[in-house]
Amino acid sequence: LETGKHISTSNKGPIALAYRELSDTAAQKGLLLRFEGTVMSGTPALHLGIFDLAGCDVTEVYGILNGTTNYILSRMEEGFGYEEALKEAQEKGYAEAVPDADVEGWDALGKVVILANTVMGAALTPDDVSCEGITKISKGDVERAKAEGMRYKLIGRVRKEGGKVLAAVAPERLPLSNPLAAVMGATNAVTFCTDLMGDVTLVGAGAGRAETGFSILADLLDIHRFARRGEGR
Amino acid sequence: LETGKHISTSNKGPIALAYRELSDTAAQKGLLLRFEGTVMSGTPALHLGIFDLAGCDVTEVYGILNGTTNYILSRMEEGFGYEEALKEAQEKGYAEAVPDADVEGWDALGKVVILANTVMGAALTPDDVSCEGITKISKGDVERAKAEGMRYKLIGRVRKEGGKVLAAVAPERLPLSNPLAAVMGATNAVTFCTDLMGDVTLVGAGAGRAETGFSILADLLDIHRFARRGEGR
Repeated sequence: LETGKHISTSNKGPIALAYRELSDTAAQKGLLLRFEGTVMSGTPALHLGIFDLAGCDVTEVYGILNGTTNYILSRMEEGFGYEEALKEAQEKGYAEAVPDADVEGWDALGKVVILANTVMGAALTPDDVSCEGITKISKGDVERAKAEGMRYKLIGRVRKEGGKVLAAVAPERLPLSNPLAAVMGATNAVTFCTDLMGDVTLVGAGAGRAETGFSILADLLDIHRFARRGEGR
Repeated sequence: LETGKHISTSNKGPIALAYRELSDTAAQKGLLLRFEGTVMSGTPALHLGIFDLAGCDVTEVYGILNGTTNYILSRMEEGFGYEEALKEAQEKGYAEAVPDADVEGWDALGKVVILANTVMGAALTPDDVSCEGITKISKGDVERAKAEGMRYKLIGRVRKEGGKVLAAVAPERLPLSNPLAAVMGATNAVTFCTDLMGDVTLVGAGAGRAETGFSILADLLDIHRFARRGEGR
């Protein structure tokens, strides 16, 4: 930004930690700051929340923002134990050898901060978000939930309540009628709760080489339209 | 357009019947033609398919594009007969006194033509789309599907196959693992199948006064950004 370049990044860190500062600098310099790939890779969650739903008041955002943990929970419902499901996720390349960033909820936490600050205009830091991962969920918990028509999902959630913005990452038992309950495997999803449109849910990939590459392409198209000044978007 | 005005419309007719002519005229005159409300009211299905997924090849689009029929099918799964569910939909204001446009699939057909021509660059007319509604589906059909882990949905579908674009509206039995199978009641949903992003699904309202009003607001925001020439979108 200091050297006069528009920015497209899929790196969560700078956007989760310094969005306000970066976007102020971009605005001062007449530059675009784009970061579609930081949440759900190229699935256009941020384009949807920031641009397509502009004009709505977004009162709550919640979603399945980490594919690895959703894959593990999906396999646990099919009868795998946690360790077994984690091992498989590691073999498939979904989970790292040290899986903490996924299974402890930290990856989803970064995305919650980004959604809060960019879609809802909040000014959260990661320390403002309570965070619990999936490591304490047993096969028995998953089976009991299933028997009661519920399904565990690791949910990142941010909501406005009495002028404050509250954010958390935690396992939740969702009823099967919730659109997010049907999202299985490594797929991600996010629901925007709005005043004018009710709930709007987007389901798609949360990671992948081509998918993250597409997020950069989508950002570059925005920058191109901006540079041409007149394409309408 | 002939008098030099940008257009925002939520009226399906002109876009389903004359999109190519209207968009050519708009382009010649440097005007914007916007029509978000013609498919899924204000749920930004067209913004998503046309703008956010630009850069992807969209090879297939399919969705639950009519809320009335989805409501009727949802109630039939709860044990209502077709006539009983239709009557209730009429009492709730979902279905017209003469319900043919919904239950015969014609409303969904118009939306399929719009999706085909605006998102996939096709040049379909309504006559190119085969169309079957839900009037022949019995409570027994719905119950049999349920027993087999399937669910009837009225699906509008358009896909590229060997250089041709094929489109249809018909009841389909979807497996419960399909994201559209979980969409119940009057809610709508659409899935874009793409080369780079795989399947991207959007779930939201398909009708409503505030929702259709929002579609006009979203169009006007596009027109405003265009008029300011430099907002990026």
